[in-house]
Amino acid sequence: MAGVVRLIDMVFPGDTNHHGTLFGGVALAHMDKVAFLAASRHGRAPFVTAASERIDFAAPALKGELIEAAGRVVRVGTRSLDIEVELVAEALLSGERRLCTRGRFTLVARGGAATRLPPLAPSPTGSEAEPEGVLVMADMVFPPQTNHYGTLFGGDALRMLGKAAFIASTRDTRKVMVMAASDRVDFATPIHEGEMVELAARIIMRGNRSRRVRVELWAEDLLSAARRRAASAEFVMVATAPAHFGK
Amino acid sequence: MAGVVRLIDMVFPGDTNHHGTLFGGVALAHMDKVAFLAASRHGRAPFVTAASERIDFAAPALKGELIEAAGRVVRVGTRSLDIEVELVAEALLSGERRLCTRGRFTLVARGGAATRLPPLAPSPTGSEAEPEGVLVMADMVFPPQTNHYGTLFGGDALRMLGKAAFIASTRDTRKVMVMAASDRVDFATPIHEGEMVELAARIIMRGNRSRRVRVELWAEDLLSAARRRAASAEFVMVATAPAHFGK
Amino acid sequence: MAGVVRLIDMVFPGDTNHHGTLFGGVALAHMDKVAFLAASRHGRAPFVTAASERIDFAAPALKGELIEAAGRVVRVGTRSLDIEVELVAEALLSGERRLCTRGRFTLVARGGAATRLPPLAPSPTGSEAEPEGVLVMADMVFPPQTNHYGTLFGGDALRMLGKAAFIASTRDTRKVMVMAASDRVDFATPIHEGEMVELAARIIMRGNRSRRVRVELWAEDLLSAARRRAASAEFVMVATAPAHFGK
Repeated sequence: MAGVVRLIDMVFPGDTNHHGTLFGGVALAHMDKVAFLAASRHGRAPFVTAASERIDFAAPALKGELIEAAGRVVRVGTRSLDIEVELVAEALLSGERRLCTRGRFTLVARGGAATRLPPLAPSPTGSEAEPEGVLVMADMVFPPQTNHYGTLFGGDALRMLGKAAFIASTRDTRKVMVMAASDRVDFATPIHEGEMVELAARIIMRGNRSRRVRVELWAEDLLSAARRRAASAEFVMVATAPAHFGK
Repeated sequence: MAGVVRLIDMVFPGDTNHHGTLFGGVALAHMDKVAFLAASRHGRAPFVTAASERIDFAAPALKGELIEAAGRVVRVGTRSLDIEVELVAEALLSGERRLCTRGRFTLVARGGAATRLPPLAPSPTGSEAEPEGVLVMADMVFPPQTNHYGTLFGGDALRMLGKAAFIASTRDTRKVMVMAASDRVDFATPIHEGEMVELAARIIMRGNRSRRVRVELWAEDLLSAARRRAASAEFVMVATAPAHFGK
Repeated sequence: MAGVVRLIDMVFPGDTNHHGTLFGGVALAHMDKVAFLAASRHGRAPFVTAASERIDFAAPALKGELIEAAGRVVRVGTRSLDIEVELVAEALLSGERRLCTRGRFTLVARGGAATRLPPLAPSPTGSEAEPEGVLVMADMVFPPQTNHYGTLFGGDALRMLGKAAFIASTRDTRKVMVMAASDRVDFATPIHEGEMVELAARIIMRGNRSRRVRVELWAEDLLSAARRRAASAEFVMVATAPAHFGK
């Protein structure tokens, strides 16, 4: 479970300037979010960001691209730790990847004096890399996505599952993929506000212009580390040409 | 009150791919939301989504179009029920409507053993259709729209009222309508987090290039079924040509 | 502290119609939000909007422009008060400003019978104007931006700090500015759900095509008026030409 935490998202049209490049502050927000998840997974305590070191932006992320933020624990103190975060932009159709920036965030564990963070694990041996052929991406469940019983709406889980299928199939084909069908989806357990979710998407069948993608959604309580499969789904994604829609 | 629940929304720019078509997962999220509202109105219990059946996407919804999700109870068991949901896209200016997909969602009532869902009502007799000339659309109040006393900001109510006026006047004229004036708006009662709201918009005066629209906002407690008019407003909407803004 | 409260935001792509003009209902929502902040700062009580007077829209706000909503208390009763709100659109590159509309909102203080609002302060003497060369903009912390300990994510604070640097440097140069670097950022105290934040941005160094901007983020408890500096940052913003990104 340790190692790198990855957040993957589309560059959102509302988050770009007149030239279609991602606002720096939004990039920083993505980086802090992944730092929070990586810190929580290591320390299993409630964390707040205390500082970010100087961050230089080497290259922009553009509207319509993916951004991938990856965070890794690099220092652990008694009650604080440092996370190094790398932000990469990826053009969906060409697959070109660009390192936008790197940064270091310090987070502090709040809570009783008894809180002691576990030491930094020995240097990783590759086990933390993405498993071959599986897209793994993390996310968090925020209040706007929960009903007033504090659990995630099925609809938001479906949206996350669909996003993972879109990204996995687009990366596999480097074409614009649309959802042609969603197979029966079962929701095993509700997902609660403040939990981390992890989506794992795998291509299970390749057609000429289509892909069948299986996506699993895992929920994880950040403090207890308890983890369970909350839902799984299979989607048929089909490559489309723009002309298809008469545009 | 029973019968069909309708959610109407614009296809949001951040929810579309490179070809400007709505992500499948976002379509599924809309469908689940209307299934939740239709289930809650029938069962008056806290529901969670247990499963969605296979869903095939027949046609895309495009950026800038309306999407309308309509949900109806089609099966009731002791503690679970099935909702059939239809998703239709509507081009705002031509009025062309396209069935994008249909799906079936199973929701389960949580709560004490005493929960027993009421049986399925006899087949509807047309009373569930939209009343002639009135646009009726449902929505939900989510935490991000509430202040920290748990009630909806007046501003979000104004946004919902304005959206209903925009859709009703655009459907009536099939031109791009902008708000020229908002008459005095009174807020009768606060709306609480987790409540369902229903907007009813009616054209009350037609000018050459303008429409006066009266919109009422009703709030409904999903568990008790208590319903009250929370606000009403009148807007003057005017048709504009793009040249008007020198673009 | 009294006087005018200002909210500044970009016109969001999802909030505009086919002609790229801001939806009237969204404009009203911005106006109500600033009315809420201005009322809370005067009365230090929990307020709800009771009514808005007739509002005429004189000019549209366009996609990609700034909108600035400024609210000021103009009448105080025993338990209610009136806020006058002005909404101005500003073209980022030309600097052209356009009065879109003016409106008056009545808000009522909820709470015990003991609540008595302080009288209207004597007519302002210019102290309420923006300090020379400093951009001051308010915002609120909403639940979707908080973790489940109820405090703002560092990332959202970074996003707000970055937005203020973008607006201040763009106003100073009237060019499209991108973030080239973020200096070390320290977070002094956590910011809580429901608090108001105020961002103050000042240009501290001017290069040929770059600006160094210092931004402070202040948090304010709306009921107690307690105010503290929660974070500060320095950003290097650089003017870019579209060609720079090969678009």
